[in-house]
Formats: sequence, structure tokens, C-alpha cells
Amino acid sequence: MTQTPLTTLDEVQLLDTTLRDGEQMPGVSLSPEEKVDIARELDAAGVHLVEAGSACTSEGEREAIRRVAAEGLDATVTSFARGVKADVDHALDCGVDGVNLVVPASDKHVETKVGSSRDEVVETTVELVEYATDHGLWVEVLGEDGSRADLDYLERLLGAGLDAGADRICYCDTVGAADPERTAEVVSRLADLGPTSLHTHDDLGFGMANVHAGLRAGADTVHGTVMGVGERAGNVALEEIAIALDRSYDVDTVELARLYRLCRTVSEATGVALPPNKAVCGTNAFAHESGIHTDGTLKDGTMYEPYPPETVGRERRLVLGKHAGRAGVKAALAEQDVAVDDDELSEVVSRVKELGDRGKRVTDADLLAITEDVQGRERDRHVELVDLSATSGGNLPTASVRLRVGDDERVASGTGAGPVDAGLEAVRTALAGGNADGADADGSAGVSFDLDSYHVDAITGGTDAVVTVEVDLSRGDRSVSVSATDADITRASVVAMVDGLDRLLAAEADAAGAEPSAVADD
Amino acid sequence: MTQTPLTTLDEVQLLDTTLRDGEQMPGVSLSPEEKVDIARELDAAGVHLVEAGSACTSEGEREAIRRVAAEGLDATVTSFARGVKADVDHALDCGVDGVNLVVPASDKHVETKVGSSRDEVVETTVELVEYATDHGLWVEVLGEDGSRADLDYLERLLGAGLDAGADRICYCDTVGAADPERTAEVVSRLADLGPTSLHTHDDLGFGMANVHAGLRAGADTVHGTVMGVGERAGNVALEEIAIALDRSYDVDTVELARLYRLCRTVSEATGVALPPNKAVCGTNAFAHESGIHTDGTLKDGTMYEPYPPETVGRERRLVLGKHAGRAGVKAALAEQDVAVDDDELSEVVSRVKELGDRGKRVTDADLLAITEDVQGRERDRHVELVDLSATSGGNLPTASVRLRVGDDERVASGTGAGPVDAGLEAVRTALAGGNADGADADGSAGVSFDLDSYHVDAITGGTDAVVTVEVDLSRGDRSVSVSATDADITRASVVAMVDGLDRLLAAEADAAGAEPSAVADD
Repeated sequence: MTQTPLTTLDEVQLLDTTLRDGEQMPGVSLSPEEKVDIARELDAAGVHLVEAGSACTSEGEREAIRRVAAEGLDATVTSFARGVKADVDHALDCGVDGVNLVVPASDKHVETKVGSSRDEVVETTVELVEYATDHGLWVEVLGEDGSRADLDYLERLLGAGLDAGADRICYCDTVGAADPERTAEVVSRLADLGPTSLHTHDDLGFGMANVHAGLRAGADTVHGTVMGVGERAGNVALEEIAIALDRSYDVDTVELARLYRLCRTVSEATGVALPPNKAVCGTNAFAHESGIHTDGTLKDGTMYEPYPPETVGRERRLVLGKHAGRAGVKAALAEQDVAVDDDELSEVVSRVKELGDRGKRVTDADLLAITEDVQGRERDRHVELVDLSATSGGNLPTASVRLRVGDDERVASGTGAGPVDAGLEAVRTALAGGNADGADADGSAGVSFDLDSYHVDAITGGTDAVVTVEVDLSRGDRSVSVSATDADITRASVVAMVDGLDRLLAAEADAAGAEPSAVADD
Repeated sequence: MTQTPLTTLDEVQLLDTTLRDGEQMPGVSLSPEEKVDIARELDAAGVHLVEAGSACTSEGEREAIRRVAAEGLDATVTSFARGVKADVDHALDCGVDGVNLVVPASDKHVETKVGSSRDEVVETTVELVEYATDHGLWVEVLGEDGSRADLDYLERLLGAGLDAGADRICYCDTVGAADPERTAEVVSRLADLGPTSLHTHDDLGFGMANVHAGLRAGADTVHGTVMGVGERAGNVALEEIAIALDRSYDVDTVELARLYRLCRTVSEATGVALPPNKAVCGTNAFAHESGIHTDGTLKDGTMYEPYPPETVGRERRLVLGKHAGRAGVKAALAEQDVAVDDDELSEVVSRVKELGDRGKRVTDADLLAITEDVQGRERDRHVELVDLSATSGGNLPTASVRLRVGDDERVASGTGAGPVDAGLEAVRTALAGGNADGADADGSAGVSFDLDSYHVDAITGGTDAVVTVEVDLSRGDRSVSVSATDADITRASVVAMVDGLDRLLAAEADAAGAEPSAVADD
């Protein structure tokens, strides 16, 4: 790959606005604790500037900004401020290092929104920059809706800001309306005035294209948000800027290996799920399903990946489905310690594809069931759900289960936060030793397991929607993924857990059986 | 906004590969019916070429491709084919118009993956192009991993394809590794050979930037997928290409007003949720929460939007939360027929922001409760949940409710697909007239309602995760959004439904009370 010089600089600075522009995303609200957690992660990754919030928003917001500012981060901590003195005072009150002073730049914003005039906005801007710098603040002046502004006026406005002592100015494509040509035109003129930042949105899908054009035109700092969270189509994603600059232009920004961790922190705090298909943070970003891709990737990791997942702190994942091929299925079976011959493998692949054709995700348990069937092996169920009943709605959700464990039958009940949680508790209790007649018939009391993950896709539609529950269970080093589908979420959840546990016990029994025979073969 | 000419062409063709590259997304599998539905939507929007699948995958896949090909679409229907004769035969067997013939181009793919040589690949390509065109197929030759290929060899390979009769060639950034400079370099040389398409991925976030660079360099056709579904970080999103080309360069591609509908169709079929923050299809793409943005948008729709939502078949949405301002809150109250004076409005706004500060999404019901409190109005509950019990896990999920309806108490039970569904049925039955003593005491039997939407966010974590259920209920023209949060999904669901219904009945009673008094005031 060519390494075309993108900028004359070795370093591009990143300003993260997840805590401000990102938090303006409808439905997202961060507590002070969450803001501090995210700010710490950003700082640990080496993000240069952290916009902690908008101090004018509310007392709760000021409290959060105060706490971020008091963290003693390496990053410069700033607050958003509109072009009014009260906002700068609010920022000062929070103890931040600087302000992102946003003043209207397009006539639409100057006249219709603020009801002001061009001259008046310039005058206010100069006053506020002087006021802020007099109070020791670092100042960036942002011309709101600058991409749609009259370019001569934008130059005059931001130039006046620099003359008044601002540290830098920012090109704002506030509504994500600009194309790369317009971005290059505007930024090249601003960069002639002084240090210039880029603030781009993705409403036309041009967020990254505009960052690229703006850096080429002379900007040296980029505003972004983690996972691109933000209003409307969102901001440009910080992690994409970082990986793209590193991979394509050899430009250092932040510690890449912390990017995925950062995305997970933001996902958990904001409640915005990791998207399936997005660079760096996407749940599928390093997952391969199709036969061609899996086969190629098993031969050479770089075959279908632009960079190793470890670069951003992740691992590769192979997934089975309708596009599965021999190499991927064989690798998945090996992980479950199951050997097959060539004919069996062909048949298993064909059955996996068939299941995928029907729209089903193929879990470990599905793969094992298919393989047993192909090999004509009888499956001894180690644990089986015979009966389940749960009550909910009241104060004490309760569930009871009857399990067959080997030749034994065990009944137990449990309570929990809801019917599913009570069901899990009942299963755990039954396995811990309780059985139908109160005695521990087979001595196998104390079967425990870890529920590593429990996931139900978003349920949308009617209350009778069918839900698919996916669980990952483990015992010791062995783990298994299982899914179950039912219109009754309680039933789907308990069935998945019991089936998963059964798979784990079967694998243990096989391993225990296999080892002595291996010794005997020596 | 400037309209810089991007290309010398008035029209850019779009090839949609949602049904092929998109479907290779791990976990996604489309049934033949779903493929036909999506293909019809693509055709109705005027997409020029539809890659219906990969005929070599499975018999189920071939059946799906056959059905799409038999639809008589205006679009050219194609199948993916690897560089082997059997794949072209499979495609012919499906009755498609053409093939996207994919042959290895980078040495990594030629040598490591396929175990072949450069010369051999050229030879096979020529043979297959001749074979395919002899059989009446339209042929596009794609050089896989072309962005990482030796450029002289890529020219030789694709040039040989054109000489052998291929209709066009395609620049493939298979692993999303290229930057815009590399894309421009490669595409400018390919476009000199003949009609050139672009196939880009988003692993570095450069999917759209590379489309932009490729079109400027002379390409005339772009491959994309709806919502950017696809392997790893996904493909470039078809709807973003369409809106960006229209808005920025005045280049026609497809019918923009059908784009959102298309995205919803693909979301439902693939199970990939509409992302919150993505251009065109994002659930928040035209939603505004922050006070500044809502205020501006209410003054002028174009203030914070690059184009009107109707352009892509959507509507604007205002959302309340911690960034709420007076204008947005006032508009939301007006929608619920509630009037407030200036002081009350200030207090309501402050309380809405407080609720938002605590991380909560503010629903209609929350707003109404706050306003009542501020205005010191007593809230007469029209319907209240007194008791709820549900059983699940077995064959017949059942629920019972005791509701207070006015002064009346009503008890009813119902069955359903699961405990939530049974709970809804019990509520409906109770409101339809059943009451505690079996008589219809107050004559208000027959209170019905529509459950317009029921949504539970994805549940991830433990089985004791707290879930938030959001419902939209309506009666006649009136609708309301309500949420309820509980670790017990049954309880959260029924509480949300009952609270929503209560709000609707209260609004009706207010309206009924207001009308006669308005008449009396005349």
C-alpha cells in the first residue's frame, strides 16, 4: 500500500466530543460517573483534547464537567460555550482548561436563529475571546454552520477571533451538508489564518471524506466522537480517524490498541449498542462467515483483513452460517475436540449451510447436533429439561424446574429479579444437588457452570414476537454457545441454558473417556 | 452550496449487492421470499443492477436467485461467480442476466489463496469471459483485492477480460484497505481501459471517500449495499451514495423518496437493526433533542438538517431529554393539548432536564406527569394496575390482572404466546367489560386500544438485567409513548401498557370536559 503524505505534520491532534456532541444524541444521557469513566479512557488512549460537556446545559452537567476537569488528565479539558458571556462564566465555574466557543457563521444562523447581524456577531466574538483568554482559558472559535457560510464573512469572523487571542479556529460542517470539494475550499482559506480544526458530520456519508479533504487542505486537528455517536447521522468516528491516519498515512494520533476498549466503555455508558458493521468497533469487524473468506483467513490472516484485529485490541472470530465452507467448519469442530473424516465433513458442511439457508445463526450446539447425526452417534443427554413453570408480575418472581440429570430426576425452585432470573436460579439449585426424592442418588451433586453472556436481541413488533436467546456457558476451560427460540422468553432462556450445560457435560465425559484410551494406545 | 462537477456523466449507475455481499454478513441469512421482496424494492427505486446472490453457495441460494431472475425486473439481475466454470454454469442455471466474475488480482490471493499463478489467472479469466458471453451473459470482471494488487498486473488481467468481451471491469477494495489516493491512482488507470465500477469497503472508514475519489478518477458505476450491510465493517451504503451524489453533485441515481422504505425492508429481512446514527436510515437521522437544535429547527427546518427528511421518505422527530429547551418542550406539550404559562414552562423544562440528567429518556407520559405536578393538578387515575400475576415456561402462558377502572375494580385473565402476551390479553379482556363481580357496574365496558409498537432494547449482561419497555398506544387520533423499567419483563410490559392507556383516557376526559366549557364561554 502506498503511504501518500497527507499532511506536512507528523502528528494530528484529536479532540473528542463524545461527552458533548455525542451526548446530544437523542436518548443518550451520561451521569457524572460515566463522563469521568469515559474521560479517563480517552486520556489513557492519549486523546489530546476532551470536550467534557456544555456547561450551560444544567447543574447536573456542570457537576459532571467539574469532576472531569478535576481528574488531572493529560488531555486539555474544555467546555462548549455559546457566544454569550454567561456560558463562558459557567465554563470558568467548572474549572476547565478551555472553551470551544461556538458563534453563528452562516446567515441562516446569524439572522434566523440568533436574530443578530454579521457585525454584531464579530463584535461579540472578539469580546468573548478577550474575556476568556483574560481568564486564562485556551480558546477555540467555531463558526457554526461554517460550511454553508459566506466564505469572506467566515474568514473575517474567525480571523477576528484569532486576532483577539484565540488559540485556534474550527471549520464546522454542522449539518453534514458539505462535500470534500467545499471542505477543501473553506479549510484551505482558514488554515492560512491560523491553526484550524475540523468538525464534520455524516449526514451525507461524507464525514471521513471531509476529514481527509480538510487535513489535505491544511487542518491539523480533528473533532470526533467514539463510535460516531452524535446528533442525527452522528459525528465522524474518532477510532476511524485514528486507524485510517495510522494505516494509510503513517500519522500517529492515539494508542490504537485501546480503541476497542474505549468503544465498549462508550457503548455501555450511552446504551448505544456496538453496531454490527462499523470499522474498529463493529461486532462483525473481524468476524468471517463466508466460506471463501474463512478459508482465506485461515490460510493467512491478512487475506481478508486490512490490519490485524490485535491492532485495535480485538480478536478474530469465525462464524458459521449458509456461506460456511469446509475450512471454517473443520476449525470450529476442532475447537470442540470433535474429529471428522472427509466424507463426514462434507455432509456436516452441507447441513450447516442448509440450516443457514433457513435464516438461522449456527451455534456451537447446532454444529455438534449436526455432527452427531452425521456420524450416527447416539446423544446421551446429560441434562434435560422435563418441566418448567415460572410466575412473574408480582413481588417475588419464582420458577421451578424438573431436570433429568443422567438417570436421576431433580426438582428445584428459585426466585429472582424476573421469571428468567428465577429460572436460572432454579436450574442452579437443581444441579447443586437437590433431586426429586431429596437424596443425592448418583453422587454427581455440585454441577456448577458460569453464564458468561446472556443476550436477547431487541424485541420490536408485537408482544407475541418470537425471541431468540443466545447464551455462552462455560465450565473450566470449556465453553459453548447455544441459542433457543420461543415466543415465551422464560422458556427460551431456560432451554438455552440447560442445552448448553448438557453440551459441556457431554464434552467433559468424552474427554474423560478419550484420555484413558489414548494412554492405552501408547 | 457549490455544485462542483464530480464526473462528466449525468448519471452514475448503482449496483446493489445487499443480496450477495450484504448477506455474507455473519448471522444474516435471507430466505428466497425475502430476497424477492428486497429485489422488488430495489427495482422500484430504480437501482440499475441487482446482484441476487452467489449461485455456487447452495441449492437454497440458487432457488432464491432463480426467483429474483424470474421477477421480470427492470434492473439487470446478476450472480456472483468465482473464476471457475462450475460457478458460471450455476449462474446460467439460475437464469440471471449476467455474472460478476471475481478473479484473484493481488499476489496474496493469486498465490496463497488460490495456489495459482498470474498467467494462469489471466488465461482462466479470458476463457470464462468468452464462455459467459457466448452464453449471452452480461459480464463484469472483478479483480479481487485489486487495491493491494500490482497495478501493472491488474491492468493486464482486467484488460484481458475486456478484450475477451467483458462489458465492464471493477476496482475492488476487497478488504477496505485503500485510501482515496490509492483509489484514484488505480481507478484512473482502469478507467482508461474501459467502463469501470467501484466496490469499496469501510474497514478504515474510507468507503465513501473512496467512492468519491473513484468517481472523480473516471468510474461510472458504484457497488453498494442497503445500510452498508456486509462482511466486517460492511460495504459502502447505497442510500448514502444516492443522497450524496444528488445533494452535492446534482447527479441522479435512484428515486430518493424510496430510500428509507428500502432500508426498513432490508432491516426487517436481515434482522440488522436500523442504526441510531447513520445517514438516511438512522433512527435519529432526523431527530433533534438538544435545545439549541430543536429551537433552531422549529424556526427553520433547514437550520440543522442538510436536506428535508421527506426527501428520503421520512419525517422529522423532536425528542426530549437533558438538552431540552423551551421551544421543544412547548411543542411537545401542544401535541398533547396541554397549555402552560411562561413560569410553568420554565419549571417543566428544568424538570425534564433533571430527568434527562439521570440518564432517562423522557416520554410523553413523563412530560405529562411533570407538568401536572408543576401545575399542582391532581391526577385522577382512569386505569390503574392493582395486581398482576403471570405464569410461563409451560405450554400455556397465562396472566391475570386486577385493574381499577374509575371506581370499579376489574379482574380478568388471558393466555398468550408468552407471559407478556398473556398479560396484554388479560388487560384487554378486563377493559372489554369483565369486572370484579362479573357485572358491568359503570357502563364503561368496551375500552379498547391499539398497541402500535412494543419495544424492548437488546438485553445483554445477566439474566437479572433491568429492562426498559417502551410502548406506543393509541385510541382514535390520540397516541402516547410510555416506558416502564423493571427487572421483570412481564411487569414492565404490563405497567407500561396500563399507564399509557390511563394517559389516553385522561386526555379524552379533558377534551370532553373542555369542549362544553368552550361552548359555554361563547
